[in-house]
Amino acid sequence: MKKEANVSPWEVSEEVNYDKLSKQFGTKEISKKVLKNLENTHPTLWRGNFFSHRDFDLWLNDAEDGKKVSILTGRGPSEKMHLGHLVPFLAAKALQDKYGCNVYIPISEDEKFFVKKDLSLKDSEKFAEENILDIIALGFKPSKTFIVRDFSYPELYKQASQIAKLITYSEAKSVFGLNPENNIGWTFYPAVQAAHILLPQFIEGKHRTLVPIGIDQDPFIRLTRDIAEHSTLNFVKPSAIHSKFLPSLKGSVKMSSSEGEETNLIYLSDNEKEIKRKINKYAFSGGRDTLEEHKKYGGNPKVDVSFQYLKILFESDDKTLAEIENNYKSGKLLSGQLKGILIEKINAFLKEHQKNRKSAKKQLKKFMLS
Amino acid sequence: MKKEANVSPWEVSEEVNYDKLSKQFGTKEISKKVLKNLENTHPTLWRGNFFSHRDFDLWLNDAEDGKKVSILTGRGPSEKMHLGHLVPFLAAKALQDKYGCNVYIPISEDEKFFVKKDLSLKDSEKFAEENILDIIALGFKPSKTFIVRDFSYPELYKQASQIAKLITYSEAKSVFGLNPENNIGWTFYPAVQAAHILLPQFIEGKHRTLVPIGIDQDPFIRLTRDIAEHSTLNFVKPSAIHSKFLPSLKGSVKMSSSEGEETNLIYLSDNEKEIKRKINKYAFSGGRDTLEEHKKYGGNPKVDVSFQYLKILFESDDKTLAEIENNYKSGKLLSGQLKGILIEKINAFLKEHQKNRKSAKKQLKKFMLS
Repeated sequence: MKKEANVSPWEVSEEVNYDKLSKQFGTKEISKKVLKNLENTHPTLWRGNFFSHRDFDLWLNDAEDGKKVSILTGRGPSEKMHLGHLVPFLAAKALQDKYGCNVYIPISEDEKFFVKKDLSLKDSEKFAEENILDIIALGFKPSKTFIVRDFSYPELYKQASQIAKLITYSEAKSVFGLNPENNIGWTFYPAVQAAHILLPQFIEGKHRTLVPIGIDQDPFIRLTRDIAEHSTLNFVKPSAIHSKFLPSLKGSVKMSSSEGEETNLIYLSDNEKEIKRKINKYAFSGGRDTLEEHKKYGGNPKVDVSFQYLKILFESDDKTLAEIENNYKSGKLLSGQLKGILIEKINAFLKEHQKNRKSAKKQLKKFMLS
Repeated sequence: MKKEANVSPWEVSEEVNYDKLSKQFGTKEISKKVLKNLENTHPTLWRGNFFSHRDFDLWLNDAEDGKKVSILTGRGPSEKMHLGHLVPFLAAKALQDKYGCNVYIPISEDEKFFVKKDLSLKDSEKFAEENILDIIALGFKPSKTFIVRDFSYPELYKQASQIAKLITYSEAKSVFGLNPENNIGWTFYPAVQAAHILLPQFIEGKHRTLVPIGIDQDPFIRLTRDIAEHSTLNFVKPSAIHSKFLPSLKGSVKMSSSEGEETNLIYLSDNEKEIKRKINKYAFSGGRDTLEEHKKYGGNPKVDVSFQYLKILFESDDKTLAEIENNYKSGKLLSGQLKGILIEKINAFLKEHQKNRKSAKKQLKKFMLS
């Protein structure tokens, strides 16, 4: 029997039924019309990887009407960044390009520091510095992108305190499954996270903010929506779009460092050889067991990790993707060939990324909000 | 039957047995030899109002040996300052004068904001600004005194987070009597308070810090001493000296705004007339019911609030105080006359204080740590 999904901000267990989760959380499906409107942004947006939302329609209306809107997406830096971390940033960047809006990126060194027992302050700050370079390398506009670090942004504690006053320990406990043995930083963190989500409004005043976020992080959105309109804040409820998890190399539900690096993760720092080796060796294939069978019955792109990566991240041309899908289904395209296509795409992406990352150091100051 | 004392950082009930409290908390009595050594500092120090301590002897040794030592005393600003708030600051100032050491003064706008349901952020910041002027007016050395405000000191959250990681919710709950309906800011606050106590070491590195503090605040000292030497901090346990409460005008155990202003409090902003009226009308007298009885049997200075204020705060000359005491006991000095002595002393003090407070505004920048 399959385990039921257990999805919280700090734990995702196997087998996620996304439709059920959306119903359970009370979010809405993103309509076909909206997906159509997002064509030519980034495939992760228009191909349904972002599958559910809260008030995205209202945000889009304001954006289309030329009203002030912003985007907020953060990162809890506890390791080198891998492909699984990219999705919300690619969505944010694509929407910034389309609507010209400001993007705020809080780096929550504190969260990882509180939650990971053995993570030192120094290491959490080192990861923050490293991760920021990866984020800048994705091509955000320096004049419209504001990165803050929780341990150095001077307004953070004051903003978080205004929210903390509105949340009892009981509430935080029930929403986030806190337990009494968690440290009091962890207990406070929901207020910090809500302050992040409201950061654009703290800085620019009341307006619609969109948060592209993994579905597991939705409890933070709910909590923040519950308090955003409180008279002491007087903000508008944040909007959100929720993504599915990026499958790991071996095909488990979420690419995550908790399951071992080698068979699961593609780091943004991997070199060409590593990519080739990892994909060829570990990428879960939807192909048949033998060449004959594959040619006769065809492969299954739905479970094929290489195809999924192309669909969600790397092949933006719909026609090319459809060809790949059809040829794979028909058996004309072999697993090894499909992997070859992906390897080429990933390596092209990472080559560009690693080049941009080097020049990101020089741009750092332009991005840091002070 | 008298209520047993209930002393926690947020509540003090009637009838405090200080010796019992010292035993219960595991603190040591300040020795006669040490009190003798503090003569010519401030009477609140050498006359036993500071009655118990933790490692004060070690702090004094370092101070006398010319090693680096510092003093830390803060304020949670929720109202205009009154006489009851003065005690730790007068002690800190006197020890700064004697040993030339740095004094750190954190202003915890956050604590009052979290704990007082109806206190707005704006008001808590306003009180902070007002209170800081009163503190500066007490005569601290600008070059050796560093005031920080929790909502604007940029390092605060990072410092508090390092401590928060070391304290579980269970521990905070049991030490401070937190309950699940307290907000998560309040739950986090013990980490902020410990960060205050360790602020001199965060800034200047490992050395002995003395905290003059009301005995009700000792749980924060215990908590901080428990974690100060943790490998991630590597600080020395803070020293503390504990004061008794300043009795209210009407003679209850603690001058506090929770019992009504008129009959309890003397504000630092009171004018000459108010002082005269309040003392004459409300100051609890240890005198007899009739003039005849008073002259015959004498008064009781131990319960006489005017005498206590002279002893703790306003009459620094031991000989003069002894004369007052003896004359009062013998019945030669009447209650009204004793009150007259106090009125004159308080008004002289407040006149100077209110003058200094006006010029404090110009000095503000010199005191704020940035």
